[in-house]
Amino acid sequence: MRTDGLYDVVAGAMSIDPEIAKASARAELIDEDRIYTDFRVMAEREAAREDRIDAVVIATPPQLHFEVASAFMEKGIDVICEKPLSRDLGEAQRLNDLVKQHNRLFLLTHCYTGYPMVREARAMVASGALGKIQCIEGELCAGFVADPQNPDRHWRFRESAMGKGVLLGEVGSHAHHIVSYITGLRIEEVSAEMTTFAEGREVYDNAYLTARFEGGARGRLWGSYVATGNDHGLSFRIFGEKGSLTWVQEEPEVLWFKPPGKPAVRLARGYSSLSPAATAATRFTAGHPEGYALAFANLYADFAKALIAKRLDLPYQSYLDGIPGIADGVDTMALIDAAVRSNEKGGAWTTLTR
Amino acid sequence: MRTDGLYDVVAGAMSIDPEIAKASARAELIDEDRIYTDFRVMAEREAAREDRIDAVVIATPPQLHFEVASAFMEKGIDVICEKPLSRDLGEAQRLNDLVKQHNRLFLLTHCYTGYPMVREARAMVASGALGKIQCIEGELCAGFVADPQNPDRHWRFRESAMGKGVLLGEVGSHAHHIVSYITGLRIEEVSAEMTTFAEGREVYDNAYLTARFEGGARGRLWGSYVATGNDHGLSFRIFGEKGSLTWVQEEPEVLWFKPPGKPAVRLARGYSSLSPAATAATRFTAGHPEGYALAFANLYADFAKALIAKRLDLPYQSYLDGIPGIADGVDTMALIDAAVRSNEKGGAWTTLTR
Amino acid sequence: MRTDGLYDVVAGAMSIDPEIAKASARAELIDEDRIYTDFRVMAEREAAREDRIDAVVIATPPQLHFEVASAFMEKGIDVICEKPLSRDLGEAQRLNDLVKQHNRLFLLTHCYTGYPMVREARAMVASGALGKIQCIEGELCAGFVADPQNPDRHWRFRESAMGKGVLLGEVGSHAHHIVSYITGLRIEEVSAEMTTFAEGREVYDNAYLTARFEGGARGRLWGSYVATGNDHGLSFRIFGEKGSLTWVQEEPEVLWFKPPGKPAVRLARGYSSLSPAATAATRFTAGHPEGYALAFANLYADFAKALIAKRLDLPYQSYLDGIPGIADGVDTMALIDAAVRSNEKGGAWTTLTR
Amino acid sequence: MRTDGLYDVVAGAMSIDPEIAKASARAELIDEDRIYTDFRVMAEREAAREDRIDAVVIATPPQLHFEVASAFMEKGIDVICEKPLSRDLGEAQRLNDLVKQHNRLFLLTHCYTGYPMVREARAMVASGALGKIQCIEGELCAGFVADPQNPDRHWRFRESAMGKGVLLGEVGSHAHHIVSYITGLRIEEVSAEMTTFAEGREVYDNAYLTARFEGGARGRLWGSYVATGNDHGLSFRIFGEKGSLTWVQEEPEVLWFKPPGKPAVRLARGYSSLSPAATAATRFTAGHPEGYALAFANLYADFAKALIAKRLDLPYQSYLDGIPGIADGVDTMALIDAAVRSNEKGGAWTTLTR
Repeated sequence: MRTDGLYDVVAGAMSIDPEIAKASARAELIDEDRIYTDFRVMAEREAAREDRIDAVVIATPPQLHFEVASAFMEKGIDVICEKPLSRDLGEAQRLNDLVKQHNRLFLLTHCYTGYPMVREARAMVASGALGKIQCIEGELCAGFVADPQNPDRHWRFRESAMGKGVLLGEVGSHAHHIVSYITGLRIEEVSAEMTTFAEGREVYDNAYLTARFEGGARGRLWGSYVATGNDHGLSFRIFGEKGSLTWVQEEPEVLWFKPPGKPAVRLARGYSSLSPAATAATRFTAGHPEGYALAFANLYADFAKALIAKRLDLPYQSYLDGIPGIADGVDTMALIDAAVRSNEKGGAWTTLTR
Repeated sequence: MRTDGLYDVVAGAMSIDPEIAKASARAELIDEDRIYTDFRVMAEREAAREDRIDAVVIATPPQLHFEVASAFMEKGIDVICEKPLSRDLGEAQRLNDLVKQHNRLFLLTHCYTGYPMVREARAMVASGALGKIQCIEGELCAGFVADPQNPDRHWRFRESAMGKGVLLGEVGSHAHHIVSYITGLRIEEVSAEMTTFAEGREVYDNAYLTARFEGGARGRLWGSYVATGNDHGLSFRIFGEKGSLTWVQEEPEVLWFKPPGKPAVRLARGYSSLSPAATAATRFTAGHPEGYALAFANLYADFAKALIAKRLDLPYQSYLDGIPGIADGVDTMALIDAAVRSNEKGGAWTTLTR
Repeated sequence: MRTDGLYDVVAGAMSIDPEIAKASARAELIDEDRIYTDFRVMAEREAAREDRIDAVVIATPPQLHFEVASAFMEKGIDVICEKPLSRDLGEAQRLNDLVKQHNRLFLLTHCYTGYPMVREARAMVASGALGKIQCIEGELCAGFVADPQNPDRHWRFRESAMGKGVLLGEVGSHAHHIVSYITGLRIEEVSAEMTTFAEGREVYDNAYLTARFEGGARGRLWGSYVATGNDHGLSFRIFGEKGSLTWVQEEPEVLWFKPPGKPAVRLARGYSSLSPAATAATRFTAGHPEGYALAFANLYADFAKALIAKRLDLPYQSYLDGIPGIADGVDTMALIDAAVRSNEKGGAWTTLTR
Repeated sequence: MRTDGLYDVVAGAMSIDPEIAKASARAELIDEDRIYTDFRVMAEREAAREDRIDAVVIATPPQLHFEVASAFMEKGIDVICEKPLSRDLGEAQRLNDLVKQHNRLFLLTHCYTGYPMVREARAMVASGALGKIQCIEGELCAGFVADPQNPDRHWRFRESAMGKGVLLGEVGSHAHHIVSYITGLRIEEVSAEMTTFAEGREVYDNAYLTARFEGGARGRLWGSYVATGNDHGLSFRIFGEKGSLTWVQEEPEVLWFKPPGKPAVRLARGYSSLSPAATAATRFTAGHPEGYALAFANLYADFAKALIAKRLDLPYQSYLDGIPGIADGVDTMALIDAAVRSNEKGGAWTTLTR
């Protein structure tokens, strides 16, 4: 957030526990009168200040996103929100309405789309380098060694956060967003098979989704907590008529392009042949790995530019085009909604409600 | 076949075209009186010779396997058969009966299980190194640039070979066999989504299968002709409670083991720490890549040892334990049969008939 | 520098061109009265202020390091200096004396030693995991596509910066430092072969050094501007009696350990089994690549901790143990000095002067 | 040897121990009257037969190559000889004279040049794809865990085989030959640093060679027995003005081409874009790894074609162009001779005697 000097942290309600909220805010050198213990109070008081905050970062568990985002948007404050967007599709759609109603900017922090080579993949698909897209594979198969009995456990293991399919919000949403971002294709129908492997776990810990995309492409998404051994586990493979793209988050500087019967090409960050979108997101010369924090920073920087431009009544839409927003959040919530219904119906093909 | 000096090619019906049959046989230096233009004549005459063949290799398209294999087994000749086993499940089951009835040896040439590191994977799973298996991923996603209109095309593009799901026999069977071989787990139910992408193609060219294995594991198989760019495309990933195994046919000397939160281990052919099964299949010292032909040779060598032992009335079953046989063929045909039915019913979970 | 909130940029003489100096300082939001156009004036005035700077960063070409560092150290200001340390060995030794005389802290920014896996390599060698070190390979072979005729060219192509062997300061110094850092072994004698390939280039653009290390190890260093194609080109391989370590800067999260006849182990950042030194330098969990900027930040953070501790009269040496200082700079300058002499004597073995 | 059906093993003197010689020959099904216990007798008797052997394979330690090769060439029998060519340069030159005098064909089995991608590298350099070659790196750094005290040890550890620098014949010769083969450049001068690390070892076990090639290129060769951990250890990197080639024997199907500032290209066996030389050496389609044995087979096949063509009085030189012969052996012996002299003179640049 601070990487490019475009943000200052000046106010915060940093925990539901008042003591932690205060201590955390003080650790960030926030002024005493802008340390809050309740987000509603924060929204109200900040809105009343002349030096009010421009945007709020919502980093709560997903079941609180709707309430918090609503409170700030109603006061005219823009929103940077963690994924997944909300508890369920209904909340997502109402948030979408509120964004329009209050004319707010909304960033959904699917951080991996900040990587230059992910942007290159998107530019390549858009340029037709792969031809018509046919097969789409996305995964975030993690290997959490969590204790399902632990009562203080992370929301990712709690049914109360967003139902038994919460893993689709926690890990599946990244896999869904990244392939949507790159191909520009939306899923129309889904067939799901969800399973709970870990004993005592109250939510599904493995989800296999088969998908029919608009335009005829087919694909698969895999979200998992039981891919034991994986350090992270996000990857995509996109196959078009003219070749394929492969990318793995753990080696984010490299994007593989493989045409049929010809050598694989190891595209890497920093080459002059890359697209403007990838180049704009590049900070160091080739061969000096940038890493995860700068991918995140790219999202924040683009959003800051949109914020500033909007304040100045300048055109700002172009800054938002390359970063995830409310529509992406709604789209993933529609997928989760349909996947859960499909799973309940024995994997029957289920149409997404939009 | 000839690698270990355990086989001689002494007779053959090498084409349905008599001229090609003769020319091909002469190129192999086969005696004129053992060059045949009809497999039935070959079975009959060879059976009548004192120096009769021990085994026949069936390398026809799959719709002929049943007839050819039956003809030779009836004459007491053992069979080495290309995959897939047969045109359909019914033929497979009848072949299985004939194998028992005639007490014959039967090798199904799923050649990739001849690789030492595939055998190592199997030994590791059996030893419990991965704990209980939970997720199973197998693929043979190829990128054929075939002309669907070509009337002389390969059987892999013909509905007459084994129906519209022929790609499950051609490529999917390898993916299915390799994960079955390694895990020892059979699929109980399957949900399938098959598609035809190439215009004018009379068969499916993409098949996504989601599978429920005995004992509770879940998995996915992907067979494809439209993974454009892929040179070969066979790989597996097996996830157990204690870690995962990954192997890619194009780098067959290496098997990756990844435990949670610890370094990945790059197991490679030739190390003294490998299992007896892997070591027995190893020909060169570590660092001298063996390649595809020797994987094939390993199957032939094991089968030859079984043949010889059986002729000598010695125990021979142990030689067959590590190589694919009739039961594996039936098992894959049962999967294909269920997958096609599932696809017709919109991906409904379909139980394999055994 | 700013990553951890431990530094503020509050003053600066940012160019020898006064206009650029002012503009650059303003871009950093430096107060007008602390914007300087002459480093001597800056040293004097800053020293006189109550809120004087704690340390100065010297990012000039190497021929100016001595003069600038001296000016600030004389005023009691600590120094963060770019590599190579100085124009020649004589300057390096005098700087070393000044550091002691003024009791100053001195950081030499060999940034690559900030990578956690480089620190892991050092810890492994120290722990005896490799046994006695025998062969040491270090490279920074770059592929600059520079125009040797360009009069405004970078100091790396100028004889005036540090003689014809300037590439040993620019790229060779990193290769030398990283293997010294990891093995703790100093070079006693060197045999050098330096060449100029690019027409019109006034300095050597390729240097092969063979080295005899204290304790009997042998090794090679390669510094080059003509390794055409390389994006960066820094790597090391260390061979001991019990196995080897391999690391490549372009994949900095991974350190390979290979024992004889056993699987290679892919050590990666974030695993709990890593050394305290590597773990202390780790910011994200495994699988979330950190990159080059955070390696740099690790040097700055350690140095800041030493600065603060020293101000508070607390023990501070332990913070300096893992980061490069004046002694490392002198050591590399001694190598360069001996290498240039060896090259002039036809590669004769030449003892380093210390 | 037998891969392509171009050779039969029909006679042999298979050991200096008569019992082993007989047993080994019988195991190869050689007729009793062509089993020999003395190579001189074999040369004489075979030469007198009508069905005499066409060629002899010399697989003795190097100190016997001269005597054996001479004996057979004098009788008009062609020679397939293991590397290194001979005990010393003098023998190599005399062998070269004998080859010419007797007008014999001579294959030196530097097997790694049989790999298709090594042939591709050579074709690329010849085509100018790399521009003028500047830096040449070749290694065969092995990690033998040998017992130096063992009296029955391999000739590679015996001074009697070819002097204290025998490792240059055993491993260094491969590194030298492969870079000579690819670049077509000969070494003019060498500077050597040889060391013995293992206690009690009577020969050098590490050799660093710096080389000046004809035309101005510079390079390094590394031969080692103490690169502990390495499974094999042969690799090359060739840097020209337009880019670099990298190849590692343990992944022989892949050749990396890296132009400056552009993506690396992963050339692999079987692509239609490869050179005729690489394609002619290719047996399977892309994605089906061929391995080490087929690289060896390629040398034998090319040599067999030359043999047959010569017997038929047809042009045969083109079959020899891509495989190593007597001149390559002499060239490596000249390098070893100069390297040993350089080492004795403290690494002084030493001109090769040709």
